[in-house]
Amino acid sequence: MGIKIEQEQPSVELSRIAVSETHGEHSPYFAGWKAYDENPYDELTNSSGVIQMGLAENQVSFDLLEKYLEEHSEASTWGKGAPGFRENALFQDYHGLKSFRTAMASFMEQIRGGRAKFDPDRVVLTAGATAANELLTFILANPGDALLVPTPYYPGFDRDLRWRTGVNIVPIHCDSSNNFQITPQALEAAYKEAEAKNTKVRGVLITNPSNPLGATIQRTVLEELLDFVTRKNIQLVSDEIYSGSVFSSSEFVSVAEILEARQYKNAERVHIVYSLSKDLGLPGFRVGTIYSYNDKVVTTARRMSSFTLISSQTQHLLASMLSDKKFTENYIETNRQRLKKRYQMIIEGLESVGIECLKGNAGLFCWMNLSPLLEKQTREGELELWNVILHEVKLNISPGSSCHCSEPGWFRVCFANMSEQTLEVALERIRNFMERMKKE
Amino acid sequence: MGIKIEQEQPSVELSRIAVSETHGEHSPYFAGWKAYDENPYDELTNSSGVIQMGLAENQVSFDLLEKYLEEHSEASTWGKGAPGFRENALFQDYHGLKSFRTAMASFMEQIRGGRAKFDPDRVVLTAGATAANELLTFILANPGDALLVPTPYYPGFDRDLRWRTGVNIVPIHCDSSNNFQITPQALEAAYKEAEAKNTKVRGVLITNPSNPLGATIQRTVLEELLDFVTRKNIQLVSDEIYSGSVFSSSEFVSVAEILEARQYKNAERVHIVYSLSKDLGLPGFRVGTIYSYNDKVVTTARRMSSFTLISSQTQHLLASMLSDKKFTENYIETNRQRLKKRYQMIIEGLESVGIECLKGNAGLFCWMNLSPLLEKQTREGELELWNVILHEVKLNISPGSSCHCSEPGWFRVCFANMSEQTLEVALERIRNFMERMKKE
Repeated sequence: MGIKIEQEQPSVELSRIAVSETHGEHSPYFAGWKAYDENPYDELTNSSGVIQMGLAENQVSFDLLEKYLEEHSEASTWGKGAPGFRENALFQDYHGLKSFRTAMASFMEQIRGGRAKFDPDRVVLTAGATAANELLTFILANPGDALLVPTPYYPGFDRDLRWRTGVNIVPIHCDSSNNFQITPQALEAAYKEAEAKNTKVRGVLITNPSNPLGATIQRTVLEELLDFVTRKNIQLVSDEIYSGSVFSSSEFVSVAEILEARQYKNAERVHIVYSLSKDLGLPGFRVGTIYSYNDKVVTTARRMSSFTLISSQTQHLLASMLSDKKFTENYIETNRQRLKKRYQMIIEGLESVGIECLKGNAGLFCWMNLSPLLEKQTREGELELWNVILHEVKLNISPGSSCHCSEPGWFRVCFANMSEQTLEVALERIRNFMERMKKE
Repeated sequence: MGIKIEQEQPSVELSRIAVSETHGEHSPYFAGWKAYDENPYDELTNSSGVIQMGLAENQVSFDLLEKYLEEHSEASTWGKGAPGFRENALFQDYHGLKSFRTAMASFMEQIRGGRAKFDPDRVVLTAGATAANELLTFILANPGDALLVPTPYYPGFDRDLRWRTGVNIVPIHCDSSNNFQITPQALEAAYKEAEAKNTKVRGVLITNPSNPLGATIQRTVLEELLDFVTRKNIQLVSDEIYSGSVFSSSEFVSVAEILEARQYKNAERVHIVYSLSKDLGLPGFRVGTIYSYNDKVVTTARRMSSFTLISSQTQHLLASMLSDKKFTENYIETNRQRLKKRYQMIIEGLESVGIECLKGNAGLFCWMNLSPLLEKQTREGELELWNVILHEVKLNISPGSSCHCSEPGWFRVCFANMSEQTLEVALERIRNFMERMKKE
């Protein structure tokens, strides 16, 4: 039994979205993953395989989560108390579990050292930040409109912000001359570029801390950004999914803090995206959130979240975990220390063979400058070097061009998705490669 | 601390989608929910409150799920075995857990009495059927195109199929003269109506078993539908989320069975939507699926499912539960018997006071004919009666007009989201109401 499907039949037509390629799956970003999947490194069974350094995953603090779950079995099951299994299984209110929204708001405050307050009633839950960013784009912009996004940016935005919404990304070009910080000039230039194409600009979307830079945005830059969006009467989306992965809390300034410090009048144009995928290392659980200061956006986002709700089972578990202050305080602090140690390990390893990185203070990756090694200072030159590193050095790192970086030779290198031993192997391979390059 | 938000400021503009009202939240369907929320019936504490009969929830078989979870704690937690907590927490491959896809495919076969086969590699997972239907619409139709949908239909489709996609619904008008079955004439008329508006028809979307009718679609009608979509070279979406809630397996014919029986050549135009929200009563866990016979649709839907993935924690639990054949066989059979008993209870109660319903064989509701009670045989007349029933009889039922039914006087009445005792109270209220009506 079963159907023989004759796909060679003249195909019934699909939508433009279905046949478009804006999801970016043909970029080097994804090609690198493929090479890794086909030949993954394993210390014991495949010691010459590709080491995955293209995956921004946090595996350094799982033991803390596991310990919590061991000690709190009630978080994973349903005791005789409320909410029992049936209430939980039936719970599909798009507001989400009140206990979970409250715990999320509180966790977001903790990460910011208490310097900003979050109202649980403004927390909109989504199945991951991917959905949160798309959902906000649907709400803020019409098809054909644009969001300005500073480069280099997360390659997934080409899919998340554009694919189904029909919205465009206009890059704000940043470069190494000022450590890739956004300047007023670059903002104005991007805005003018959109205007020249008759494209209506609806907002600016930043990632703070930045992916792929692994660095936070300076307070003065954020203030300039707020002034810019106010002057242009447009929106500001601040994707802060790495805000709990800043090595020292004091180094991170959330846009939420500036709004409070200034008692900013136009907060309704500001929206924050958060997620537990990076800071807690739980991408599989699909927990994202939109925090908007705009009532209409909150209401609309909640309705729209029907398409992308979080499992109530998962809300139940995380409400328990995140409302345990003793756990969260220890987790946040320990996770920071461990990430910092990893970061120093990779930075020092690279420095010792003459490779420089952007000074970072956050995230699960560093931003590595290999431009001195390029034969040609072009995108092609960068991809040639990337190919050598992927197929000869057997490291999957992400070329800056896949992040729309306008300067060739930069690469994002992830360091938290592997053991320290594997990171040592990766550094050893880089050392050998640099020796070889010197001789050639 | 905290931000004072001055929403009276001139608002920064939102998208057309954000300010549109196609999500249908102002329909009586939602107004009824509000009336219930403000004054919910409770046997002990609010015995004169509104009884919620507008909610298609299955609460009759929770004890079976609870028993399974009690006996299989490994489904809710992570033992020392694979996959451990960390593997599960990190798992975000949009293919979904292989074990879960396999269990889903097998469960879908069981529901159909083994008369259709499902390939786990064609199962695309989404966070609920809401997302599955929207996702398919994005893939099959461009903004401005149309899907033909037989009336009466689930009011949520006005949001799910239209809101963010920009796709239109053109109704296929069905009526009581043939028990609301779809006719070739009605299909052609709907197609011509779309053509007359210069709207490109991309497909037909049916619910089988039908929500709100609570009845399955006849085999001959399905065969006619397949001929129709083949002749017009368009798609067929069959939403079968109540397929496990048919009172007797043999009464339900899935489009999958017809494809297999006929060795149908054009299966690539057929797509099935399924979910565990109704048959297992787990709407909070957000588990939906698209099963497509079209390779390109499978691939595209999988990529698009990034916006609406199912929590891996929930996949883990359900993979365990659904791959336990002893459990699923007993669950399916017991759940059917219980739903049938409930159905007979409400039908007999209504018949005894002279109210007729469409002959049903599936679902969590019956389709009740109150047209003899209407003062005017119009939509307004129907809504007047609905208002009396909501505010005086204190029952929240769904008026047919909210389902775009073209004949006034029909109502959907849910019977599986309450205890038998509460159902008795509801029937008693209807009896009293009918007595009163006779006297007036």
